[in-house]
Amino acid sequence: MAITVVGSVAYDTIETPAGRRERCLGGAATYFSLAASYFTDVRVIAVVGEDFGRRQEAVFTARNIDTRGIERAKGKSFFWEGSYMKDLNEAQTQQTDLNVFASFEPKIPEAYRDSEFLFLANIDPVLQRRVREEMPGVKLVAGDTMNYWINDHRPALLEVLKGLDLLLINDAEVRTLGGNSNLLKSARAVMALGPKSLVVKHGEYGATLFHGSTPKSEEPEAFRAPAMLLEEVIDPTGAGDSFAGGFFGYLASVPEITPATYRRAMFYGSVMGSFACERFGTERTQQLSRKEIDNRFELFRRLTHLD
Amino acid sequence: MAITVVGSVAYDTIETPAGRRERCLGGAATYFSLAASYFTDVRVIAVVGEDFGRRQEAVFTARNIDTRGIERAKGKSFFWEGSYMKDLNEAQTQQTDLNVFASFEPKIPEAYRDSEFLFLANIDPVLQRRVREEMPGVKLVAGDTMNYWINDHRPALLEVLKGLDLLLINDAEVRTLGGNSNLLKSARAVMALGPKSLVVKHGEYGATLFHGSTPKSEEPEAFRAPAMLLEEVIDPTGAGDSFAGGFFGYLASVPEITPATYRRAMFYGSVMGSFACERFGTERTQQLSRKEIDNRFELFRRLTHLD
Repeated sequence: MAITVVGSVAYDTIETPAGRRERCLGGAATYFSLAASYFTDVRVIAVVGEDFGRRQEAVFTARNIDTRGIERAKGKSFFWEGSYMKDLNEAQTQQTDLNVFASFEPKIPEAYRDSEFLFLANIDPVLQRRVREEMPGVKLVAGDTMNYWINDHRPALLEVLKGLDLLLINDAEVRTLGGNSNLLKSARAVMALGPKSLVVKHGEYGATLFHGSTPKSEEPEAFRAPAMLLEEVIDPTGAGDSFAGGFFGYLASVPEITPATYRRAMFYGSVMGSFACERFGTERTQQLSRKEIDNRFELFRRLTHLD
Repeated sequence: MAITVVGSVAYDTIETPAGRRERCLGGAATYFSLAASYFTDVRVIAVVGEDFGRRQEAVFTARNIDTRGIERAKGKSFFWEGSYMKDLNEAQTQQTDLNVFASFEPKIPEAYRDSEFLFLANIDPVLQRRVREEMPGVKLVAGDTMNYWINDHRPALLEVLKGLDLLLINDAEVRTLGGNSNLLKSARAVMALGPKSLVVKHGEYGATLFHGSTPKSEEPEAFRAPAMLLEEVIDPTGAGDSFAGGFFGYLASVPEITPATYRRAMFYGSVMGSFACERFGTERTQQLSRKEIDNRFELFRRLTHLD
C-alpha cells in the first residue's frame, strides 16, 4: 500500500571525522522516502527551491518515488549545516537556512489521496495537522517531531498527537515530552496523549517499541531492537528518518498488520538506519538491494536471538 | 561447578530519588556472589572489619555462599557513599573510605582451590593477578575493572588482561581501554590485549557480547541483550556486578559451554542486573527464587525475539 510523506527535502553540508560533504541531498522526507521505497510505493510532499535540479529529482525517480508533490518555489531550498566532530551521536548545528521552507504550504496532489499510509515527518505541527485533516481516508498515520516543537509549540503538537497511530521520536525527546526521566513512564505518558504505539530511537543502542493498545493482553507491551555494530560510522545524518522509512515502509508492505509485523518492522527500521550511517548523506541508501536489506535483517536476528 | 570470587565486601550509603539508605551491605563481591548463587556454588575472598557482624554474614550463608575466605581484620570495613540524585545512570561518589581494604592481601582457603571458575572483581590489578596465579587450575577466568585502573595503573592491568578468558566492563571503560570511540573497534582492541571474550555493559540499554575467538567462523561475532524496562529504578548500585554474577554463574552451571550458552548467559546477566535495581542494595537479590529468575528470562525473550 502507498505511503504519502510530508517533510523536508533539503541540502546538507556535513562534517564528520570521516570527512566533509558540501550541499548533499538531505532532508527528513528524502531519507524517509528512499528507505521506504525498498518496501512499497512512496509519494512525497515537500517544497524545494530553484537550486533543486534534475540530478536531485533523479535520486527519487530512480527509486520510483512519486515526486509530483514536490513543489518548486522561487528561492533556495532548505539548507542545513552540521558537524559531528565532537560527538558522532549528536550533530552540532552550524547553520540553518529555511529559505523556501519558511513559507511551506503543503499541497496534496489528487493522485496521492488514495494513500493508505501517511507519514508526517518533522515539520511545524500546524502543517502536520493540516495534511492529516486533508487525508481523512488513510489507514495508518505516523509522525515524528523534535525538541523545538515539544518545548515551544506544545499546544499545536498535542493536537497532532491526538490523531497519530504511531509516533517515532528519539530517547531525549520522549523523556521531554513525557515529562519523566524513566523511559517506561514517559512512554506511557506520551501514549496517553494519543499515539497508540510509540517507537523510541536510542541511537547506537537501538530502539524500543511500545504498544499502548495492548497493555493487559498476552502480547508484550514492549519490543527492543538493537543497533548494528558498525566498523565505522561515516555520517549518522538521516539515520532516524531512514529508520522510520524502513519501519513504516515494511508495515505498509504486508497484507495484515499484527504484533509480529511491528516486531519485524523494528528490525527493518534498524537495518535501514544502519545502512544510512555507512556513507555520507543518502549515498548508501540510494544504492541498496532488497537482498542486502534482508541479509542484514538476518544479521540482526543472529545478533539478538538465543537460538 | 564452583566459582571463587575475589573483591570488595563493603558498606554503602546510597541516595537515589527513591530515598536514602545508610550503611547497607554492598561491595562488588557481595552483589556478584548473591547473583551467582542462584546458579552454582560460590566462594568469596574478601576482607572486612570489626563492624561486619553475624547479620551481614547471614546474608551470604542464607544463599549457601562459602565465606571462609572473608578475612576479619582490625578496623572498619570498606565504606562508600554515593548519590544518584543527578543521574540514575551514574553515581556521584560522596565518600570512599578504604579502611581495612587498603591493606587487603587476598588469602585463598585450601577448600577453594578446586574451583573451576574464578571471578576477579574490580580491585587493584596487582591483587587480581596474584589470585589468578595462585589458582592455576581454574578452567575459566573472568574479570572486571574500572577507569581508575585503566588510566592510572595500566601496566598492572595489562598483565591481568593477558590471563583473562572474559572481561566484563562498561561502555565508557571499553572505549577508554580500547582507545577508540567506536565500540566495535575498541572491543577488538581490548580483546587483542588478552580476553578471548568481552561483555560491554551499556546500563539501561543492555549489553553486548564480543567473541574474539570466532571472528571468521559461522558463529556471530557479537550478541546484544537488552535491559529490562523498569517502572522505577530504586537503586542501580551493584547492577553491573549482579549482571556479572548472573552471567558467570550461569556459565558455571552448564555441563558444556557453547556459543549458545554465552547468549543465554547474557540474558541471565541482564535479568540479575534488572532485579538488583528494583530495591536498595542487595534487598531484592537476597530474596529471589529461580522461578522468578526464569520467568524474567522469558520476558527478555519476548522483549527481543521476532516470533
